[in-house]
Amino acid sequence: MTARAFVPGHVTGFFSVHPDDDPVVAGSRGAGLALSDGVTVGVEPVADPSGRRLLLNGRAVEMPAVTGVLDRLGADARVTAETELPISAGFGVSGACALGTALALDAETAGGHTDRELVAVAHASEVEAGTGLGDVVGQARGGMPIRLEPGAPPQGYLDGLPARPGVEYITFGGLDTAEVIGGDTEALSRAGEAALETLHDSPTVETFVGASRRFAREARLTTPDVETAIEDVQAAGGEAAMAMLGQTVFALDDGLSRAGYDARSCRVTAGATLLEA
Amino acid sequence: MTARAFVPGHVTGFFSVHPDDDPVVAGSRGAGLALSDGVTVGVEPVADPSGRRLLLNGRAVEMPAVTGVLDRLGADARVTAETELPISAGFGVSGACALGTALALDAETAGGHTDRELVAVAHASEVEAGTGLGDVVGQARGGMPIRLEPGAPPQGYLDGLPARPGVEYITFGGLDTAEVIGGDTEALSRAGEAALETLHDSPTVETFVGASRRFAREARLTTPDVETAIEDVQAAGGEAAMAMLGQTVFALDDGLSRAGYDARSCRVTAGATLLEA
Repeated sequence: MTARAFVPGHVTGFFSVHPDDDPVVAGSRGAGLALSDGVTVGVEPVADPSGRRLLLNGRAVEMPAVTGVLDRLGADARVTAETELPISAGFGVSGACALGTALALDAETAGGHTDRELVAVAHASEVEAGTGLGDVVGQARGGMPIRLEPGAPPQGYLDGLPARPGVEYITFGGLDTAEVIGGDTEALSRAGEAALETLHDSPTVETFVGASRRFAREARLTTPDVETAIEDVQAAGGEAAMAMLGQTVFALDDGLSRAGYDARSCRVTAGATLLEA
Repeated sequence: MTARAFVPGHVTGFFSVHPDDDPVVAGSRGAGLALSDGVTVGVEPVADPSGRRLLLNGRAVEMPAVTGVLDRLGADARVTAETELPISAGFGVSGACALGTALALDAETAGGHTDRELVAVAHASEVEAGTGLGDVVGQARGGMPIRLEPGAPPQGYLDGLPARPGVEYITFGGLDTAEVIGGDTEALSRAGEAALETLHDSPTVETFVGASRRFAREARLTTPDVETAIEDVQAAGGEAAMAMLGQTVFALDDGLSRAGYDARSCRVTAGATLLEA
C-alpha cells in the first residue's frame, strides 16, 4: 500500500513573471482555475537513487520538478502519476506531479512537514526546473486562485473567486513553457499586471475570462487554432480564453460544445489532497 | 433555484484567545480539524429585513453571526441550514452558517466579493456575536488547519497538516462558548500557546491529538463524561481529545467505536465551497 495524493489540474488565464534568486520567492502573479481533471500521484520509497523512476500514465519520463522534490526531501522513491489531462498544454501537470510527490512522500515516510512546507518544496522545484511559476500554489489552494504576491508561502499570497463554474477545454498542441518564461517577458508581464488590476476592480468569473482573453492577445501568445476557437465560443454566446502555456482553449460551462467542438468537460474544484489509504 | 454552499464542521483541539477592537483582527491561535460532516446553507433573497429568517434543520432560530453577515453584506435573505452535526457542542455550526450565508449570498446576488473578503465578513460577524474565534477561518481553509496568527485575512495566517484521517465523535452535551471565551482566558491561552509550540516542533496528527488532550485538562474544560471517554479510547489503543467548546470527544479513525462507543464517523475534508446550481 503506497500513499497517494490527488492534485487538480491548473489553468492560468493571465500572469506576470517575478524572478528571484531564491526559487521559493520567485514566481508569478495572476489568476487561474483548479480543475477536477487532475493528477493522481503515488509514491513507493526505494533503497537508493538508482531506484528512482517516474511513470506518467505508465510511461517512464524525466521530470526535473519531481527530481527536485525528491532531492529536497532527501528521499528516493518510485513515483506513479496517472492523469486524463493533456501533457505540456497548460494544465500544470509537472506542478501536479511535484506537489503530489511531496504530499504522498511525506505521508509515506511520516515526514512531519506542514502543508506550507510541502508547497514550498514543490514550488521551488518547479521554478528551478523552469516548467512553471504559479501552478503549484494554485493547485494547493484550489478553486479559482488569484495570485496576489508571487512565490510560495510565506512570501506568496493568494485570494480567490468563490465561484465554482463548469469548465470545458480543448487542446491543439503544446507550447514550450521554459522558452516563454525564460525569454523576454516584459510586455507579457505588463499585460499580466493590467489584467490583475482589472480583476481586482471587478472580481467575477466573467471579468477573469475576459481579462485572460485580452492578456493572451496582448502577450501575442494565441495561435490561429486558439483564436478561431475563442471566436467560435463567443459567437455562440459563451466565454472562452487561452490556457497559459499551451495551445489550449478553456470555456465556461458548455461554451465549447455549444460552439460545436468536441471538448472535455470538468469543474472548478478544491485544492490538492492526500487520498484515503 | 437558490445558491447553496457546503461548510465543513470544525473541531478545535486547542486555542489561545487574542482580543482586538477590530473583529476582523480579533481571533484565536490554535489547531483543529475540518470535518466532512458539515452544514449545507441555502439563501433566498427577500424584499426587506422583515423577511429575514434562519431555519436550522427546519426550525426557526436566532443566530447573531448570520444576522451580522446579512448586515455587513447589506442584504436581506431567508437562510436555510441543514446539518447532521450536534448544535452548540464544539463543531462550529454557527461559524458554518455565517460562512455559508456569505458564500451563497454573494453567489445569489452576483456580489463580486473574493474568498478572503467573504471569510472576513463571516469571521467578524462570528467574533462580534461571541460564538467563535477561529472556526470560520478553519472552515474556509479545510484539512487540519493550524491558526498561526489570529483573525481573518489579511491579518490571520494559517498553515495545516497534510494528513486526512478518519474521525469519530460523540457528544455528551453543550458548553457555552460565549461564557468561556468571554471569561478569564489567561490560563487557557497559556496552555493553548504551549500546545501550538508543541505542534510546531512536531507537526503530526498524533502530536495534535496529544497536545489537544493536555490542553483540555490544563484549561480545566473536561467533564467526567469527556474524561472517561478519552481514557476508554486510549485504553483501547486509540487517540482522542476534547472538542472546543463542547462536551464532545473526537478520536482518530475508529478509536471511539473500538472502545465500545456508539460514535458518528466522518473524515477530515476540504474547505467551504459553493455547490453546483
